[in-house]
Amino acid sequence: MNDTNEPGKVNELLERRQRLLGSGSPLFYDNPLHLVRGEGVWLYDADGRRYLDAYNNVPHVGHCHPRVVDALCQQARTLNTHTRYLHRNILDYGERLTATFDDSLSMLMLACTGSEANEIAIRMARRCSGNMGIIATNFAYHGNTTTVATISSVFTPAKERGPYVRTIPAPDSYRVPAGFPAGDLAAAYAKTVQAAIDSLEADGVGVAAMLVDTIYSSEGLPDVPAGYVADAVRRVRAAGGFFIADEVQPGFGRMGDHMWGYQHHGVVPDIVTLGKPMGNGHPISGVVARRELVTEFGESTMYFNTFGGNPVSCAAAAAVLDVLEDEQLVENARVVGDYVLAGLRSLQKRHDIIGDVRGRGLFFATELVTDRATQAPATAVAKRIVNAMRDKGVLISKIGVHDNVLKMRPPMPFSREHAELLLGTLDECLTEL
Amino acid sequence: MNDTNEPGKVNELLERRQRLLGSGSPLFYDNPLHLVRGEGVWLYDADGRRYLDAYNNVPHVGHCHPRVVDALCQQARTLNTHTRYLHRNILDYGERLTATFDDSLSMLMLACTGSEANEIAIRMARRCSGNMGIIATNFAYHGNTTTVATISSVFTPAKERGPYVRTIPAPDSYRVPAGFPAGDLAAAYAKTVQAAIDSLEADGVGVAAMLVDTIYSSEGLPDVPAGYVADAVRRVRAAGGFFIADEVQPGFGRMGDHMWGYQHHGVVPDIVTLGKPMGNGHPISGVVARRELVTEFGESTMYFNTFGGNPVSCAAAAAVLDVLEDEQLVENARVVGDYVLAGLRSLQKRHDIIGDVRGRGLFFATELVTDRATQAPATAVAKRIVNAMRDKGVLISKIGVHDNVLKMRPPMPFSREHAELLLGTLDECLTEL
Repeated sequence: MNDTNEPGKVNELLERRQRLLGSGSPLFYDNPLHLVRGEGVWLYDADGRRYLDAYNNVPHVGHCHPRVVDALCQQARTLNTHTRYLHRNILDYGERLTATFDDSLSMLMLACTGSEANEIAIRMARRCSGNMGIIATNFAYHGNTTTVATISSVFTPAKERGPYVRTIPAPDSYRVPAGFPAGDLAAAYAKTVQAAIDSLEADGVGVAAMLVDTIYSSEGLPDVPAGYVADAVRRVRAAGGFFIADEVQPGFGRMGDHMWGYQHHGVVPDIVTLGKPMGNGHPISGVVARRELVTEFGESTMYFNTFGGNPVSCAAAAAVLDVLEDEQLVENARVVGDYVLAGLRSLQKRHDIIGDVRGRGLFFATELVTDRATQAPATAVAKRIVNAMRDKGVLISKIGVHDNVLKMRPPMPFSREHAELLLGTLDECLTEL
Repeated sequence: MNDTNEPGKVNELLERRQRLLGSGSPLFYDNPLHLVRGEGVWLYDADGRRYLDAYNNVPHVGHCHPRVVDALCQQARTLNTHTRYLHRNILDYGERLTATFDDSLSMLMLACTGSEANEIAIRMARRCSGNMGIIATNFAYHGNTTTVATISSVFTPAKERGPYVRTIPAPDSYRVPAGFPAGDLAAAYAKTVQAAIDSLEADGVGVAAMLVDTIYSSEGLPDVPAGYVADAVRRVRAAGGFFIADEVQPGFGRMGDHMWGYQHHGVVPDIVTLGKPMGNGHPISGVVARRELVTEFGESTMYFNTFGGNPVSCAAAAAVLDVLEDEQLVENARVVGDYVLAGLRSLQKRHDIIGDVRGRGLFFATELVTDRATQAPATAVAKRIVNAMRDKGVLISKIGVHDNVLKMRPPMPFSREHAELLLGTLDECLTEL
């Protein structure tokens, strides 16, 4: 391998990339990283320099976890085929997976990506409700296929969302819309859901579903007012729609105390969508849903996914569950997560630019503001911090409507030692501003 | 492993499957197969009985090909991450892949499934044409996400296709619609494309693209009248639309003389979509398109696919190209394909039920009819033959509007010896009718 991280070499890769993939293919950092190896929570560039990965959730149980790789390879050497033949793997895995949900969520459909999972969920909700309308937040990301792109307001402007989408604000307790009563935010936000329902019904479209990420990741990981989600879901169901919980980011124990993000809201979804961390990088995604919905959908139309549920992806996904259990990673997410959160709050006391600190388990949002009183977003500073962290060897990113929220979402085997490196480096970067 | 193929064991798997996946999850054969191992063109059931795979195109270079598995495993042990970091694999593979296309098709977007590839193609065509309409055949399959489902008439009834889809008949030289002039079928079929264009324009929708499988697989692999595709594409382009070639089934050399199905029609597409065989079972798909289209799409919207183009999938896909070249499998597809085709034509002489035999490379259609004069489809017989072949240890399937066309599409290392087993077994089944 003649790979290096010399500027000449990186520029050559950048030029080849521009020619082949174009400028529409996004890269992280002002100074893009050329990575060649991963192990646990560490990523290594072409010069052998290591970076603490405090960003990637796809390598859920750690980059290149040997148990997952071994399971993948053993099955890839044995048989990789579709689900029109019988195979134990999809049954063994699926029964184990659905057992982690509430009893009513007992059936499974498997696909390859979060986009595909959300497409299934929307098709199912529309089919079973007889309605077309989808309610999502005004800064959501749910995928890149035509239909889920229309509800991914993070990159789809309002005029391109078409007649079936209504957006609502994320239930943010820090940046509260003008006129919202501080004393009853849950009710105020729930009213925005009612307005979306009313609008869809007024247009004769009806409500098929409210589809939300249960921790509102792209929206900046807001502290959700207690009772809001349950109230919103009640209204959606009263209008004949379903609640689709997008667990692509919160799922598989990241929140530290539960396996699924919806469990924090005291309401059981009708349909749940799963993605990124499910196969630790192997493309597998899924939909877990109520029996009546899967049955009605299955009886009304054909759905077959060539790669979905193949024995290799199910072997990898089962190994992820094995590692989560055997290495007690959900408990680790809770313990280390609390430690990081306390550390971020301590940094907030010393750095005025930190307006708010939020998080649960191993997912953290640190909102930067130029003025705590006005909450003016420190967007440019957030960008500088993300790049400065990368230069110091710690990988994070940013989220939120104002792109001013530092996003930290490390692989699950993140330890207290890793946490100290993350916090210490962030402290340095904030101090050097 | 206590897996067996005893009826009791199979019934237990069927019951578990029904409970977990429901009846919407399709299985092949009246007597479903419980497979546990694959190697080359062979699949093995739980009792160790082997089956000649004359159906599956996903294991393109053969089930569990050791070079592909080794490439997959080596990269999975090293690094599996997304394309927001630089990595050589996507560039090395992508440059090599695009070099197999006409010069104008120079840019690449990678995803995980054929559905995702077709979704990208449609989004791109709509964005760059400013139109919404899609023209597809009336018995096409292009995927399972909301938008491509509307153009997958094989399972989406006309009333569910929405305002943006117009369907055309596949250009079939065997079953010619009433009133079509035998002397100029190409022109007659091209007129159906013109009618679709006119209808989309009359409704103010306009033409974004004609999207077709370049060998019309689901439609029954018709012999396409010479000049038809070029004429149809000319009309679509004159209306401001693009030609999207779905190469998910014909691509990667299956046709034996070219790498891509469109090369038989004397016209270069604007956008090409790739899927199933690309990673020999690893979920990878892609869009290869003209520079202007990828650039305009990339500048107008964000597109990012978490798993798409990751180093593991690119390593697997590169190994597929290695094996295709080193084992001269495209040449093999031509030579063995010609042998099978001649064998099928010979069977046609002895079995009246074979109304027509079609094929190219390693993809064959054998159309069964109860009466050659009336061409009445022998749908029930086709089903019996497919099941009888399975019971005798040879796996095939069926396609076509009347579900009466035997479909044979084996992995590419299919040899003359395998061909003889396929033909001999088919002869037996036809004789025993």
